[in-house]
Order: sequence, then structure tokens, then C-alpha cells
Amino acid sequence: MNSKVRISFESAQHLAHKALVAQGADDLVAASVASALVLADADGQTGHGLSRIPSYIDQMHCQKVDGMALPFIQNKSHQSIEIDANGGFAYPAISLAVEELLAACRERGGIVMAGIVGSHHCGVAGHPVEKLAQDGFLGLMLANTPKAIHAFGGAKPIFGTNPIAFACPRKLHDPIVLDLSLSIAARGKIVQSAGQGSNIPDDWGVDEQGQPTTDPKEVLKGSLNAIGGTKGMALALMVEILAGAFVNSHFGFQASSFFDREGGPPRVGQLLICMNPLEFNPEFFKQIETLVEKIREEQPARLPGSKRFANRKAAEHSGLDYSEALINTIELLAQISR
Amino acid sequence: MNSKVRISFESAQHLAHKALVAQGADDLVAASVASALVLADADGQTGHGLSRIPSYIDQMHCQKVDGMALPFIQNKSHQSIEIDANGGFAYPAISLAVEELLAACRERGGIVMAGIVGSHHCGVAGHPVEKLAQDGFLGLMLANTPKAIHAFGGAKPIFGTNPIAFACPRKLHDPIVLDLSLSIAARGKIVQSAGQGSNIPDDWGVDEQGQPTTDPKEVLKGSLNAIGGTKGMALALMVEILAGAFVNSHFGFQASSFFDREGGPPRVGQLLICMNPLEFNPEFFKQIETLVEKIREEQPARLPGSKRFANRKAAEHSGLDYSEALINTIELLAQISR
Repeated sequence: MNSKVRISFESAQHLAHKALVAQGADDLVAASVASALVLADADGQTGHGLSRIPSYIDQMHCQKVDGMALPFIQNKSHQSIEIDANGGFAYPAISLAVEELLAACRERGGIVMAGIVGSHHCGVAGHPVEKLAQDGFLGLMLANTPKAIHAFGGAKPIFGTNPIAFACPRKLHDPIVLDLSLSIAARGKIVQSAGQGSNIPDDWGVDEQGQPTTDPKEVLKGSLNAIGGTKGMALALMVEILAGAFVNSHFGFQASSFFDREGGPPRVGQLLICMNPLEFNPEFFKQIETLVEKIREEQPARLPGSKRFANRKAAEHSGLDYSEALINTIELLAQISR
Repeated sequence: MNSKVRISFESAQHLAHKALVAQGADDLVAASVASALVLADADGQTGHGLSRIPSYIDQMHCQKVDGMALPFIQNKSHQSIEIDANGGFAYPAISLAVEELLAACRERGGIVMAGIVGSHHCGVAGHPVEKLAQDGFLGLMLANTPKAIHAFGGAKPIFGTNPIAFACPRKLHDPIVLDLSLSIAARGKIVQSAGQGSNIPDDWGVDEQGQPTTDPKEVLKGSLNAIGGTKGMALALMVEILAGAFVNSHFGFQASSFFDREGGPPRVGQLLICMNPLEFNPEFFKQIETLVEKIREEQPARLPGSKRFANRKAAEHSGLDYSEALINTIELLAQISR
């Protein structure tokens, strides 16, 4: 049985917020987490949505993430802001980073960066850069994640799937938002295929011996393939360096899982970069429209980001569909305080 | 006949320099171009080496690139430097950018960017970031190039192969250098296969109808595939925005070829970003060694960049092998002034 229930945007946020608070999260933290997860569901990025609530709460209970922790600014200069996630959820730290980047870029233009140290699952990497772009700035975010992809010639995972997200503002339209992880397929899809007993394409990953396989269970024991072979591995390494070592956080191979109780806090990192689009080119916005027109003229397909905006609009209007089992679980967590 | 000649690093530079000057380039410009091309050959990146000399000179003669033009600083703030390539070769502009970035980052740390407007073929994108890293800084460069890759769902090229290069300094070792273009295969390889009449893998590109093909000639009429499908297209779009519109240069679809006399100056762009590795993490260098050890321990293969350093060392010691025909052509160009 896969019964679905449809609930409104606000009810979904309210329910998630209530469950997190009941299970020991700070009110502000819970609000930030709940709104990020529901926005992910609304955008169709359900792997980063309310389905995370039970495991997030589990991780709070075992101290892998501190639900009471508020982020703080560790250091600040004209060009950079260091934010400590303080052992807590990533979302409040990322929101603080976005706020600080916008303030700095509004005041001084140019380029400003924010590093988030000791962080947790960043959710949809496109969201923070979208916020920067909604305010008129170019946004880039790199995040490292627990190990999933093997390095050059190997078969054991070392690098995370390490999302890269970028957003470009437009004058009268939603921003262009790109958001991609560096594995060919998401781990979630492989887990799903394993659960269903179905095969996967033979380029998604390798078994423990580094051999291609269509068996999702073997890939989960082995390692995921990066996009473009060594090219994607190289990009994953770049993200490890910039979002891991550079911001004083763990590498993917040092980070614990975002899903289970094993290990201490993952302490992954995020790096955000914000740029004034008019820094070098007063005609930036005009030129972007030329590019958009060209893509539209030659190609039948949509611009990156447009699908998630359409999904979101529909969800805001008609509500979100959830599995009844998930909603029942979250309702239970909301009622029984710890 | 594919006779080879072996010549020293210095002789190769001297010959290239002489040919460029004889054909109308400024002395300093010629030195910059010659040294970049020979370094590319030494690194094994021969597609960006002396084989470019005849087409570079051709482009000088038809005013597509101004061999006499020196770059200049258009604008400068604490966080950004705008450099005008002035219709000339990219190499002197990139060298100026590297110099300015190092000066700014040495003085103030943090993050600094340089945009190069109205530029030309950037050669090996790994070289400028390597220089930043040799001086102890993290370097990132994005460059756009003439159209080669189709956009989402289309079949006509819109985006360039758009290299991304990144370098990370190490304390006692050569830096880690990544340098990748966003097409699965280099156009040069496809041209080579077409010349040899051999087939190519069916994932390298599509024909004019957007269908996969193993015929390199059809791909040259059609379009190249990006790594990871829409993921690589998204990255290529990001590079178009940052290295094109952002730095006030052409998009790939507006740029003329780097190889022939057709069209005006390509006016592509480059964006370089330089960061102080100790900005957030005093233990950065120690942590990088942990990552290097981990990669070495689990995997048989080498670190990105190590092959080009080994090639370079060998070339510096034993000289470079060139086709006799190429060297004869360049010698002729060096002797007959225009």
C-alpha cells in the first residue's frame, strides 16, 4: 500500500517544525530545517525533503547533530565570512551565510565568500544560491558529502557526491539555477533499485573489485561512478579541497553518514561565493537574456531551474503529496515528546 | 612520413618567438605566447602547443588577433581586477591577471578575482592556476571557448568546451592541478579520427539531427556531448555566464573559431579566482597531505597534475619531440618576415 495524502505547504512546514521541536530541537532551528525540507519537496527534490525527518531526529537523539545549536560568525573580513555550524544542522548556518554575503556584496560589490565549518547535510544546494540570485547576485556553492565516489583508478569510495550549485539572476524572471552532484546517479536511486530488486545501468557504479555491474547491491558495497570518469573525479576532488580542507571541515572519507547513528558528527563543509553581476559588465542582464533567447531558439528544452520553479508554484497552489506512512510517522514524532 | 626532430626547451621557445616576431608580433607578446605553447608541449598537452603557431600567425595576418596589443588594467578594486586583452593574445593578459591576483592576495588574503575581457585562446587552463598555487594560493580559472556542445535537448552547439582548472598548493610538493574541458572528448581527437577515417565511441557526440553516431565527420557537423549529459551542460552554461557575460565577453555561440580566418576577434573571456588557503583553516596544508595520503593508500593511480609535471621534467631534461614538418614550417615563418 502506498497511500498518498495531500497537505498544504504551510501544514507540511508546521508538522515538521512541531516534530523537530517535540524531539528536542530549538524553535528557530526547527523552523529553518522544516522550511528547507518542505521547499525541497515542493521543488520535486524529495530526496532532501520530509523523508529526512526520522533520520534527522535519530541523529539528534544520538548527538550526531545538535538540534539546539545555533550557528555563529567565527570570523569576518571584507571578503570572507567564517561561520561555525556549531555542531548543529546546516540550514541555519547556510541562512546566516546567505544573509552575510548579501549584506557584504550589497555594500562593497566585488566577490565575497563564506565558509561553513563543521556542518551537516546541506539539502538542496540550489536553494542558497537561488536566494543570492533572487537578490540580484551571482551565487556559487560547493558542498562536500560523505564518501561515495572512488578516486583515480581505485574502487573504494573517497570523495562525496559533492554538489555544485550556481545561480544567475535575471531582471524580470526567476534566476537560472544549476544544481548537480558529481556522481552519474544519486545514491538514493541506487538504494531504491536495490529495494525493488531491479537492475541499474552498468555505468552507475562499480563493485568492490572495481568492476562495472548492473546489480545495485554490489554498487552499494562498491562505489559510485563520477560523471565523465576522471573529469568528474577531478571536480569531486576540487570540492573536497574547497568545501572540506579550505573551510576547516572533514573530507568526505572522514565524514559519517547523513542517514544513520554511526560515527560522530559528520563535520562536512560548505563554501559559498557571491559576486556582483555588474562588477565588470554594466550590460550583464541584457547579455544573459541574449543567451536565454539563443538556448530557447535552438533547443526544445527548458532552462536549468525552471522545472523546480514550476513544481514549486504548483505545490504552493495545490499542496504536496506525501506517503501516508511518512506523515503518520512525523505526526507520531510531533505528539510524543522525548 | 612522420619524421620527428628533438629540440631543447629553449630552442623551441626561441624558434616560436622568432617566428611570431617575424610575422608581426610584439617582442613581449611573442615571448609570452612562445613560452606558453612550449610549456604545453612539454606537459604533453600538444593540442595547445607549437602546432598552433601557423594558425595563430594566420589570425594575426587577418586581424583576428592583434599581435602588437598589450593587455591593460581596465579597473581595479580590493576584490577584483578587470583586464582588457586589448584584442591581443590571451597569454599576456592572463600573466598580468596572475601577477595582480598574487599581489592582491599576498596583501589582503581572502578572495580576489580577475576578469579578462575580449580575449583569445587561453591555452592550457591549468597553467595560470598552477602559477597561483606555486606561490601558495588556491587558484580557479574558468574560460569559455567557441561553441561545441549543445544545450539541453538540442543538437546545435551553443556552449564551448569551456575548461575548468583548479590548483591547490602543497608545502613540499608540486601543487595538485586539475584541468578539464566539459566535452567527453576533445574536438582535436574527433578531427584526428575523421582524418584517419576511424570510428569514435558513440557517446562522444551527435549528428545534425541530434542522433548518436560513431562517424567523427557527422559529429563535426553536429555537436559534442557534455560529460554527464545535462550535468555537464549545466556546468558549461555556468562557465558561459561567468567567463562570458560576467567578464563582458562573448558567449561561445558568438565567438569565432580559434583556428581559422573566419569572423572577427573571438572576444571570449576568462575568469580567475585566487584564494588564501589559510583564510579559514591554519592547518590547511596538513589536511591536504591527509587527503593525498588517503588517495595514494586506497588507489593505485596518480594525483591530478602529476603526469604533466613528470612530462615537463623529462622535456626539460631531454628536449621535446616535434614533427619535422611542423618545425620546418615554423622555421620558414621565422625566416621570411612579412
